[in-house]
Amino acid sequence: MKTVQGLCVLFMLNLCFLDSGRTGKVLVWPMDFSHWINLKVILEELHLRGHEITILVPSPSLMMDHTKIPFNVEVLQLSVTKEVLMEEFNTDLYSVIFELPRLSWWEMLTKLAEMNERFFRTLKRVCDSAITNKELLSRLQAAKFDICISDPLSFCGELLAELLNIPFIYSFRFSEGNVIERLCGGLPTPSSYVPGSTTGLTDNMTFVQRLENWLFYTMNDMMFLYFLFPEWDDYYSQLISHVLHRTKIGSLRIFLENWIVKYFPLTLSLLFSLQELEEFVQSSGKDGVVVFTLGSMIQNLTEEKSSMIASALAQIPQKVLWRYTGKKPDTLGPNTQLYDWIPQNDLLGHPQTRAFITHCGTNGIYEAIYHGVPMVGIPVFGDQFGNIARVKAKGAAVEVDLHAMTTSDLLNALKTVINNPSYKENAMRLSRIHHDQPMKPLDRAVFWIEFVMCHKGAKHLRPASYDLTWYQYRSLDVIGFLLACVATIMFLVTKCCLFCCWKFGKTGKKKKRE
Amino acid sequence: MKTVQGLCVLFMLNLCFLDSGRTGKVLVWPMDFSHWINLKVILEELHLRGHEITILVPSPSLMMDHTKIPFNVEVLQLSVTKEVLMEEFNTDLYSVIFELPRLSWWEMLTKLAEMNERFFRTLKRVCDSAITNKELLSRLQAAKFDICISDPLSFCGELLAELLNIPFIYSFRFSEGNVIERLCGGLPTPSSYVPGSTTGLTDNMTFVQRLENWLFYTMNDMMFLYFLFPEWDDYYSQLISHVLHRTKIGSLRIFLENWIVKYFPLTLSLLFSLQELEEFVQSSGKDGVVVFTLGSMIQNLTEEKSSMIASALAQIPQKVLWRYTGKKPDTLGPNTQLYDWIPQNDLLGHPQTRAFITHCGTNGIYEAIYHGVPMVGIPVFGDQFGNIARVKAKGAAVEVDLHAMTTSDLLNALKTVINNPSYKENAMRLSRIHHDQPMKPLDRAVFWIEFVMCHKGAKHLRPASYDLTWYQYRSLDVIGFLLACVATIMFLVTKCCLFCCWKFGKTGKKKKRE
Repeated sequence: MKTVQGLCVLFMLNLCFLDSGRTGKVLVWPMDFSHWINLKVILEELHLRGHEITILVPSPSLMMDHTKIPFNVEVLQLSVTKEVLMEEFNTDLYSVIFELPRLSWWEMLTKLAEMNERFFRTLKRVCDSAITNKELLSRLQAAKFDICISDPLSFCGELLAELLNIPFIYSFRFSEGNVIERLCGGLPTPSSYVPGSTTGLTDNMTFVQRLENWLFYTMNDMMFLYFLFPEWDDYYSQLISHVLHRTKIGSLRIFLENWIVKYFPLTLSLLFSLQELEEFVQSSGKDGVVVFTLGSMIQNLTEEKSSMIASALAQIPQKVLWRYTGKKPDTLGPNTQLYDWIPQNDLLGHPQTRAFITHCGTNGIYEAIYHGVPMVGIPVFGDQFGNIARVKAKGAAVEVDLHAMTTSDLLNALKTVINNPSYKENAMRLSRIHHDQPMKPLDRAVFWIEFVMCHKGAKHLRPASYDLTWYQYRSLDVIGFLLACVATIMFLVTKCCLFCCWKFGKTGKKKKRE
Repeated sequence: MKTVQGLCVLFMLNLCFLDSGRTGKVLVWPMDFSHWINLKVILEELHLRGHEITILVPSPSLMMDHTKIPFNVEVLQLSVTKEVLMEEFNTDLYSVIFELPRLSWWEMLTKLAEMNERFFRTLKRVCDSAITNKELLSRLQAAKFDICISDPLSFCGELLAELLNIPFIYSFRFSEGNVIERLCGGLPTPSSYVPGSTTGLTDNMTFVQRLENWLFYTMNDMMFLYFLFPEWDDYYSQLISHVLHRTKIGSLRIFLENWIVKYFPLTLSLLFSLQELEEFVQSSGKDGVVVFTLGSMIQNLTEEKSSMIASALAQIPQKVLWRYTGKKPDTLGPNTQLYDWIPQNDLLGHPQTRAFITHCGTNGIYEAIYHGVPMVGIPVFGDQFGNIARVKAKGAAVEVDLHAMTTSDLLNALKTVINNPSYKENAMRLSRIHHDQPMKPLDRAVFWIEFVMCHKGAKHLRPASYDLTWYQYRSLDVIGFLLACVATIMFLVTKCCLFCCWKFGKTGKKKKRE
């Protein structure tokens, strides 16, 4: 009897192991700003669990300080300095936020194409610095990594994984309905109820909104499939002609493994270390505080805009902690303090916090949901419009338009989310749902990374849709064939009928004549 | 400082709770045979964790013995006896297996419609016995259940949940691409790579196979949406006219919650209690044993078929444990033992087991995968064709056709899976993948049941696609509108051109004349 039970227990423990146990060697191709904040949490956890992490950091990184990263770091030397890159980046960001909305449709497209060009040139420089560095490549080859974790927005990670012949994983969830998830992750996302991430639509759409969403999907698909991917395909082909002459980047991503880690940054490890900050928060008394940040990318606003915002903030009874590095606005009230940096997650978890004014980045939104804090959203670009649309639909946020808003708009929005109890209730309901998970999100992320490492790329997770063309995937060839069959049959039947009528008519006429 | 940390810890534990803690009252609307075997494991676990289970069991149940069920049982008294039902059931099953394949297409459809009619009549009898029993209903109402767990194949569970105004959950995963999952679970399953469960196709299809699968989807959708659901809708409407005059059963299912528990029956709790069985298994020596069952529904075969099978089994060096209650075949070899019942899961986990001959039910297939045992599949009906197709595609099984097979076919299939090491290797690979899960499947099933209970139906999990018609879901109205726009523009442009040509021609002619 013992044998059977013993065997069963053995099988229960029969997890997949690498030669080195469940831990392995992880190569990381990161992305800057909030993507880095997000990924760092997972890498730290992997590091804690004994994985060996090696990260490729471009020398002019804006938020990734390679002297402070606690993993193996390979610095990619670029000729451009951090200052030049930051200048370029800030100019572009300023354009996106303040200039683009005022341009005509055609000017906007031209401007966007220009920026895209510049962004891609930088990405290519970074990619070049890694791929053309033979010495680095052979060092990486010798290290025998088990996996490459890559950010899909930055490209090149998949090329590196291909060159080193190791599985890779994407560390990034843009948003439902986004083109990268559809084309590279193989997620079936019907445009009829999965809104594109930058459209600001929800899952409950009118006919016109569904039309808008369908056009958005189609245009994005075409842009990626016919412009962006082929451009990168060409670029990749130049670097490793022997492999990529035959494949598009779309299919390169397909050969390798894609697992988009749906990650919620719920770290509670940050310690609330600023005594001064805590005193300010406690001094707010029963009115509490409002936390206000526009994320890691936006350093400053126009003077006009910041004054307008400051005068709204000055009129609420709450104290305000505003992360802002621009010029101090003249209208700043005594209740508002400016900071270069704030421990955002800890402040959102503080019992004195009444509301969060946010640019609607994914990280901030999830932290606010986690702590059940109602929001005033000021989306600036990208998926931020979609993020706030979702929270608004659940009744936990009010949105204001960065360009059109007046002092009273912001003031009213703040008063609404603070004084109308339904916003706090809805935020708390979202928080309860968000907490009620079968395992901690960080554990889940780590599990699936180890899983893909351990199962050598976990090819069985790859959906068969990768082998289909877009029209096969949508069964258009099947439907076309069936329509052609129906048309042929109808044509033949009509011809037969006509022929019969004609024959019958002729016979009839003949008979008549006789 | 303490406040913030304290609060965070509080939030970490802030799971959703019912008034009675995380446990609650569960009402169960079960289904017989393998569905019951499967659900019982989850119910036992819920019971162990302190949930109060009440199950509605029809008096003539075939496998659910209400005297032995360790939960609260409400027996639904039916006029039909177990013996009559069993007789009826066996006749139908025999027809499905042995008669249907020989009939013409039209005769088969007529026969199937007849059987369906009979099956539905039985289901309606069961439903009637519950819904028309005012005394039972008020007792159930008074009990204040937190959830109703229901089998989607049996109908009526959702009606009961509607009447009692409680959330419900489906306990059943038929197979990917099945109509119930698509129409009632809201799963997006493109027919281009998700094979219908009874088609026996895999995710890698040729054009003709995709055509077949598309037709299978379309015919199933039409059958359910235009025949089966409306029939049940009418029946429901008669029982509770005030609610269901307005809604189709499709939308009733939609109002309530659907969560299809993808459940793997990995119980290790069954003890290997038959000493005699163990002795027989051990006596097989280095050749080992083969386990053979055709599931809970099939009691016997034709004499010809069983003789043919027995003579194949007699020719292998392994010992064979055959669960079979029919007449002992004349050709039965000394290496083969017949049993009324075998502890299937424990036998599959026995180190002496070399192969599993199976009718390809979901439970058996998962148990064999769990223990890494290669299979010879003899699919009989329903999803069994799809189940074996999947395992065959992974190289862990050989399929033989129940109707066409000869002694040597079965013999060769057995020799192949036992002697060709690739089958064992592939089965072990599947087993490793199957074991490598972040949490035990039973824990996962229980977690999500508690989750839906706790969040009062968890309405936020309901996909927005439920509110769309089939053509809206597929964006056909959007595409139609765009095509109409294009056609209109082309028509207008053509007309304009023609008008200009005509005008120009006229002016030209005029000029010529002048």
